[in-house]
Amino acid sequence: MSTVRRVGVLTGGGDAPGLNAVLRAVVRACTVGHGVTVVGISDGFTGLVEMRARELDLDDVSGLLVRGGTILGTTNRGNPFRYAFRRPDGVEEIVDASDTAKKNVEKLGLDCLIVIGGDGSLSIGERFWRELGVPVVGVPKTIDNDLFATDYTFGFATAVQSATTALDCLHTTAESHHRVMLLEVMGRQAGWIALHAGLAGGGDVVLIPEIPFRFEPLIAKFRARERRGRPFSLVVVAEGAAPAGGAQVFAGEDAVTGWKRLGGCSYAIAREIEARGGYEVRATVLGHIQRGGSPVPSDRILATRFGIEAARLAVGGCFGSMVAISGDEIVAVPLADAIGRLKRVDPQSQLVRAARAIGVVFGDEDVEQAASSEG
Amino acid sequence: MSTVRRVGVLTGGGDAPGLNAVLRAVVRACTVGHGVTVVGISDGFTGLVEMRARELDLDDVSGLLVRGGTILGTTNRGNPFRYAFRRPDGVEEIVDASDTAKKNVEKLGLDCLIVIGGDGSLSIGERFWRELGVPVVGVPKTIDNDLFATDYTFGFATAVQSATTALDCLHTTAESHHRVMLLEVMGRQAGWIALHAGLAGGGDVVLIPEIPFRFEPLIAKFRARERRGRPFSLVVVAEGAAPAGGAQVFAGEDAVTGWKRLGGCSYAIAREIEARGGYEVRATVLGHIQRGGSPVPSDRILATRFGIEAARLAVGGCFGSMVAISGDEIVAVPLADAIGRLKRVDPQSQLVRAARAIGVVFGDEDVEQAASSEG
Amino acid sequence: MSTVRRVGVLTGGGDAPGLNAVLRAVVRACTVGHGVTVVGISDGFTGLVEMRARELDLDDVSGLLVRGGTILGTTNRGNPFRYAFRRPDGVEEIVDASDTAKKNVEKLGLDCLIVIGGDGSLSIGERFWRELGVPVVGVPKTIDNDLFATDYTFGFATAVQSATTALDCLHTTAESHHRVMLLEVMGRQAGWIALHAGLAGGGDVVLIPEIPFRFEPLIAKFRARERRGRPFSLVVVAEGAAPAGGAQVFAGEDAVTGWKRLGGCSYAIAREIEARGGYEVRATVLGHIQRGGSPVPSDRILATRFGIEAARLAVGGCFGSMVAISGDEIVAVPLADAIGRLKRVDPQSQLVRAARAIGVVFGDEDVEQAASSEG
Amino acid sequence: MSTVRRVGVLTGGGDAPGLNAVLRAVVRACTVGHGVTVVGISDGFTGLVEMRARELDLDDVSGLLVRGGTILGTTNRGNPFRYAFRRPDGVEEIVDASDTAKKNVEKLGLDCLIVIGGDGSLSIGERFWRELGVPVVGVPKTIDNDLFATDYTFGFATAVQSATTALDCLHTTAESHHRVMLLEVMGRQAGWIALHAGLAGGGDVVLIPEIPFRFEPLIAKFRARERRGRPFSLVVVAEGAAPAGGAQVFAGEDAVTGWKRLGGCSYAIAREIEARGGYEVRATVLGHIQRGGSPVPSDRILATRFGIEAARLAVGGCFGSMVAISGDEIVAVPLADAIGRLKRVDPQSQLVRAARAIGVVFGDEDVEQAASSEG
Repeated sequence: MSTVRRVGVLTGGGDAPGLNAVLRAVVRACTVGHGVTVVGISDGFTGLVEMRARELDLDDVSGLLVRGGTILGTTNRGNPFRYAFRRPDGVEEIVDASDTAKKNVEKLGLDCLIVIGGDGSLSIGERFWRELGVPVVGVPKTIDNDLFATDYTFGFATAVQSATTALDCLHTTAESHHRVMLLEVMGRQAGWIALHAGLAGGGDVVLIPEIPFRFEPLIAKFRARERRGRPFSLVVVAEGAAPAGGAQVFAGEDAVTGWKRLGGCSYAIAREIEARGGYEVRATVLGHIQRGGSPVPSDRILATRFGIEAARLAVGGCFGSMVAISGDEIVAVPLADAIGRLKRVDPQSQLVRAARAIGVVFGDEDVEQAASSEG
Repeated sequence: MSTVRRVGVLTGGGDAPGLNAVLRAVVRACTVGHGVTVVGISDGFTGLVEMRARELDLDDVSGLLVRGGTILGTTNRGNPFRYAFRRPDGVEEIVDASDTAKKNVEKLGLDCLIVIGGDGSLSIGERFWRELGVPVVGVPKTIDNDLFATDYTFGFATAVQSATTALDCLHTTAESHHRVMLLEVMGRQAGWIALHAGLAGGGDVVLIPEIPFRFEPLIAKFRARERRGRPFSLVVVAEGAAPAGGAQVFAGEDAVTGWKRLGGCSYAIAREIEARGGYEVRATVLGHIQRGGSPVPSDRILATRFGIEAARLAVGGCFGSMVAISGDEIVAVPLADAIGRLKRVDPQSQLVRAARAIGVVFGDEDVEQAASSEG
Repeated sequence: MSTVRRVGVLTGGGDAPGLNAVLRAVVRACTVGHGVTVVGISDGFTGLVEMRARELDLDDVSGLLVRGGTILGTTNRGNPFRYAFRRPDGVEEIVDASDTAKKNVEKLGLDCLIVIGGDGSLSIGERFWRELGVPVVGVPKTIDNDLFATDYTFGFATAVQSATTALDCLHTTAESHHRVMLLEVMGRQAGWIALHAGLAGGGDVVLIPEIPFRFEPLIAKFRARERRGRPFSLVVVAEGAAPAGGAQVFAGEDAVTGWKRLGGCSYAIAREIEARGGYEVRATVLGHIQRGGSPVPSDRILATRFGIEAARLAVGGCFGSMVAISGDEIVAVPLADAIGRLKRVDPQSQLVRAARAIGVVFGDEDVEQAASSEG
Repeated sequence: MSTVRRVGVLTGGGDAPGLNAVLRAVVRACTVGHGVTVVGISDGFTGLVEMRARELDLDDVSGLLVRGGTILGTTNRGNPFRYAFRRPDGVEEIVDASDTAKKNVEKLGLDCLIVIGGDGSLSIGERFWRELGVPVVGVPKTIDNDLFATDYTFGFATAVQSATTALDCLHTTAESHHRVMLLEVMGRQAGWIALHAGLAGGGDVVLIPEIPFRFEPLIAKFRARERRGRPFSLVVVAEGAAPAGGAQVFAGEDAVTGWKRLGGCSYAIAREIEARGGYEVRATVLGHIQRGGSPVPSDRILATRFGIEAARLAVGGCFGSMVAISGDEIVAVPLADAIGRLKRVDPQSQLVRAARAIGVVFGDEDVEQAASSEG
């Protein structure tokens, strides 16, 4: 018989489509299914330290399934173990506020804290459980889909949809103007969005962090397409993609372009292709558009299932665990196993080989290979 | 060393988003990867009997990734084993045209025939291979997602997207007018679209063929929502859903309503809810809209991967097999194992239980259960 | 100097995308611009009779721009002049509740009542002003776009978008299956949605109430398309379209098909085309899907401008007037001039002639004309 | 009786959604309605100088209604009066190739040339007619909507849709993260897209070239929103927007950021807001995504009507004219009157005043005004 009566929930890290759907499912499952009260904590761990929280009932989460964002607010900051505390004199100092956070969990009367977040937030949650004994259940969140312990994360499919729609738009312009069009998508350490959107949007070249690229095969691909009467190409660039030899081949560029702010080096890549190939090139950085919007159906379903399972684990006292999807089943995995490990694209994987089989070039090919990839 | 030089491809059965993407992938993989020529056969097996075919090159499949439908045409008719042959005098007679079809495969110089279709077309393909020795590779297709041997089929996700978008539209109207809104979606024998769209679109009631329903729990759910200040509800009805006791409870209705043409009995259900509950009810039959439109990204990718693998199997001489997806891997399964078996929704499955956990009513609940499903 | 301090607002008649955007604009313009309080009345005139109302502030209307429906609720019933009053003994009787409604306006302290609705609601509003002296400002609403005194109404463009998207979906299926596909859209008395969606979605035949049709030119058009290698066609049918001679040519059908519930006679038309032309025909009734969803940008803007102008008129004391759009300017027109008159499609208009110029058939052509409309 | 038997058509300048729909309408109207042959010229005036052209029939334009881009190709270069001719030795020289172009019109047997393009292409067309006597009919095209002689141009509504969708996405992220989000949209000389998308997407601040802005009112607006419990804001920036005092207030930035390539100064604006207001700011440049994609229904209709009227003018011998829309009517205007004049946003217009009425800040307000714009 469960003694859990009150469950807290917070969202941490970057915004992702489906966060609100998780919150809705947590509240519905707790309230309707388990008779448990849910307390929403504002702005991630910051709100826990600063004791900003309110109860959430069915009315609060009505209509959330279709809405992007999180009604709780979220932030990339606010690690209680290294908390940026602003003193009355305005000076900021880094303090350990984890004890305050723990005490606030008690003050709020929470029997469990559901942490919805990426690797950073989940790692904090794991320490709360392991070091401080705060009962924690984790829900993984990253639009990059690079968390190790789950096959997929909600938000990813919506980000792929946004990127694919953008590619569909750029395709007609590329074709009409005989241009090379670059689209930079998210993925600092893993190229999942670029790979999926590249396949779905008909990208001719896909550049991902896992496969350092050279410019020669790219130019060879463009030339081969020209010869086949297609004097235009689409290049999908993950934020973290870099040429073989490292991003330092662009050294000195940073000062000139300022593109670091945006994450990736697609402007530098665009210029290099113009210089080497004589093409008219245009680069677009999709940016935060990928984080927003109404989640696609599969993300709504995944987020809902994660929320339901997190409620079940919380109520059932399975603390220190994280929900995940494996195949088509929602499962629980130890938080400790889930954090600190990246799931990256395997260059030998079936999906990458499939892309190559229909002619997608990743930039690690021989020039001849790249040329023959186009018919 | 493969001796396959020429591969035929045809599309059979109902239209599905992603068919063109399969064709594109088959042609790209065969042409670019294997140096093999592809011959497209028009209008399914009918075109094979009537010898309507043409070679497909890269230009023919350019731009197909985003386009619904099939450039080859498709039909639900034309089984060569029971071919409706129209004699010069206009009389139609049923003949066995399988030998003609086999000879046409030879005349076209095909070393393998890729059959993209549902259970009907794949069964014909299997007989071609087993009985006639025609080398066949199958690609499964059904927007209903009810084929046994594969986790998913392309077109399903797009159909779910269309149904979810429709639910999003109906939701605001239901809410504004305090109505019960029904949406009938495809699924004559399996309720996958209804279940997924119901979860993604916030359906309050989901009626599927696998779970015979009674009206009492439905009314109880509506009443419970009313009490909670939500005097409106969304009901998702699969085409094949029927009340406990069978569709004959509507006996006599057929002559009056003609809804059989549309497949399901949602108009009859709507009337019954009006009569029993005193609600204003509106029913919409989404119909063929679910079959069309540009495929969503995941369907484009799945269709592409199926096409690539079908090309590989064809060129590699793995005849009598069908491509499928298992987890995240594309695999080959024997055609004989794939046909004649339905994959239906398991009422005890995790997904159904998840839906119940957030309050979705399937109509097999006790009245009290249904009432308490709403907060 | 305005003495208006408190403005009421209600939404009446059928749901339309943009209603919420009007409410948001009214509240923002009144509150921010004029320092005036807004009171929202629930469920149209019913809520006025039953005194269900609440103040609306900026927070209440936050996020409404993108949401379909109306947060106030709406109904097609509730005419105060003929109010269906349910007595304690359960018997319903029709009473004149207009005096009650007027008194409630006073009780609520309203200096003006903004009525957002179609011809029915606006006519009631006009009587309130003319007969009872209640200060009223009208905002026209109909997705059918058939209100006389304004060039356009919000919701229409969104409905056209929904219908066009449906046509885009049906197009690929029609083409793949060599079928005639019918889409029935709203428009009982005016064919604006059918005409616009037909043009935007590439309809081959458009049937509207303003142009009685015969089946012969339709069949001639289908035949001509077949001869040109296009054995499929798209037919857009307005709900109110009827064959020359009147809907009674379908007499007796009603009992058999029950399609009257759905509004139009597209099923009957479909069967007739099957019978006369030997085509495989499928009909889809888009129905309430057209009323919902997030409004398209132009509807959001039009709704916003209407709301702003209604606030200005209310605060400025310009009672008895209705906002409208003429060209690109928002204007005020007398309510009395706006009601009771339909804006219908002129068969001789430039838009209809344009449609004919690219081959669209309306069903009033000679058979030869219709045949030559296709190349 | 018309003696026009053969009409040429070319597309010039930047890509715009609807170009293909114009081509389809020109071909359908000419072929079906007038029995006139259409010749498509590739890549704008370049194709005319280089004599790259082909006849277009109904099959060539089938399916074009829904497709962005132009099947003819387009370019911003290739002015025949100042033609960049590449000599055999590789040196490029500027020559007058207008005589060659004129002769090619004759060689192709064209009785009229339909020029679809922006101010640049139309100006060339006008000189062709006035100076060289080549019969020309113009069709205006600009997604910026800044052509003087027509109320609207196709492509504009689709660009507004893309920008609004992006704002809808950014809105949830801004809200979840308490950020100021900037979206840069097209509009170098006129702020139409920014103004419309700003209204439709709920922008709090709209910066357009026609209204030089100061940072103080912007910060005041953000502060006022914070005080109202909305610590996030959306800023829509037209490419050509600049602070009062001119873009030179950012002088020196160019070298550092390289953002000039993208057109606007939104990165610089973002940094300035961060510096002055202490906000976390993110800027997204929508870029070429606005030029692509399937045209929205109203653009498909406008493009179709333009194409039909251009065909009518061409066949009717009304040379030297351009099609335009005035109110709801398609009209013809003299090319000479249409070119060289911009249609810019009037800061005193009803639309700008409407935006201000619901609290949109343009940056020219007093600080107090801006603050009180938010409730």
